[in-house]
Amino acid sequence: MWVPGAGGRPGLAVAMAAAAAACLAVAMAARRWRRRPVREVLFFPSPPSCTEELLAEAAGPGARVQPCPCPLPRSDCSLSRLLRRLLSARRSLDICLFAFSCPQLGLAVRLLHRRGVRVRVVTDEQYMGLRGSQIGLLRHAGIQVRHDQGHGYMHHKFAIVDRRMLITGSLNWTTQAIQSNRENVLVVEDAEYVKPYLDEFERIWEEYNPTNNRFLCQGQ
Amino acid sequence: MWVPGAGGRPGLAVAMAAAAAACLAVAMAARRWRRRPVREVLFFPSPPSCTEELLAEAAGPGARVQPCPCPLPRSDCSLSRLLRRLLSARRSLDICLFAFSCPQLGLAVRLLHRRGVRVRVVTDEQYMGLRGSQIGLLRHAGIQVRHDQGHGYMHHKFAIVDRRMLITGSLNWTTQAIQSNRENVLVVEDAEYVKPYLDEFERIWEEYNPTNNRFLCQGQ
Repeated sequence: MWVPGAGGRPGLAVAMAAAAAACLAVAMAARRWRRRPVREVLFFPSPPSCTEELLAEAAGPGARVQPCPCPLPRSDCSLSRLLRRLLSARRSLDICLFAFSCPQLGLAVRLLHRRGVRVRVVTDEQYMGLRGSQIGLLRHAGIQVRHDQGHGYMHHKFAIVDRRMLITGSLNWTTQAIQSNRENVLVVEDAEYVKPYLDEFERIWEEYNPTNNRFLCQGQ
Repeated sequence: MWVPGAGGRPGLAVAMAAAAAACLAVAMAARRWRRRPVREVLFFPSPPSCTEELLAEAAGPGARVQPCPCPLPRSDCSLSRLLRRLLSARRSLDICLFAFSCPQLGLAVRLLHRRGVRVRVVTDEQYMGLRGSQIGLLRHAGIQVRHDQGHGYMHHKFAIVDRRMLITGSLNWTTQAIQSNRENVLVVEDAEYVKPYLDEFERIWEEYNPTNNRFLCQGQ
């Protein structure tokens, strides 16, 4: 085997080949052992289930977790999986959602806000005022909410956890959608998918900044 | 370097190390050169654009493609990209869609059916009868369509091209959604994401098989 610069010294050639093989082996092992990105698909409807203990555990280390007396099952389901993904947030949660009326998901978002996670919500102007919407409760809790001001719908249904995990699909966060509709949600950590959604969120967040609104007085 | 079985023969050790390094290099090169899966994110609204030539080209090798006299731009946009992904189908197109009223997308699906692609459509019972729905035209063209029979919505918005490319997101295939709403679409070839959607499609397709319906006569 010819090795550049080895100058015909077989010992050096052997050492260099061994070093190259070792480097490749280490690189491949590192690749294998690196944490695989989350890749999950959730389908709905999700059967009615009790999420009280899940939410109580997430309230923080000092929270008292008491068994819930309700008769609903505590089984693993698409709603509980979605909740766990959201509750894994440690630094930020960016939500871009057409309709948001599910009480359990509203409570989870308020819990994260209380835990110090930076929560931002973008929603649709026409839907947010309807009865049952969680948007008023989020605002009352001190969470930043912005909405569209155009003629089309803000019809996205995605959230980004800690700027690295994308949760997106057909699902509006409503009890009707969760318990009755055929819906899908993708949970994705591949940067190629997450980055465009991060950019879209920042674009919309800035576009819907209320300080950009121009209120024209009569006569102007 | 100790190599099992080399029995202290340095020439054999060098050869084996070189062979190992070569194998690793070939494996890594093969990995690099294998066709990367499609990973695309499309955002809407998409500006009004002319898709006549794109659709005419897709009609088949014998089709006459004449310049369209309309004043709309032919620029690359989210709608034209979505159309191209759909028109790449060669064997099958499985569609699972809450609302379908966009004429260009309807024409594309009918073109694929005429080209011999096996098209199957699942849709929502309540939406499919509304004015402007493409479902009647698809059925009239001979495309198989099935719909839900339950009380919730069939709210999915996904399509699978040739059982390997998933197109999913918040977008209903309506002109309002395409031209006015904030929407997102993921185009994905990673098998980990595509397989669950294939299974969901087959599950729904079978569940909505009209021969499974039970029509009860009065008095039964």
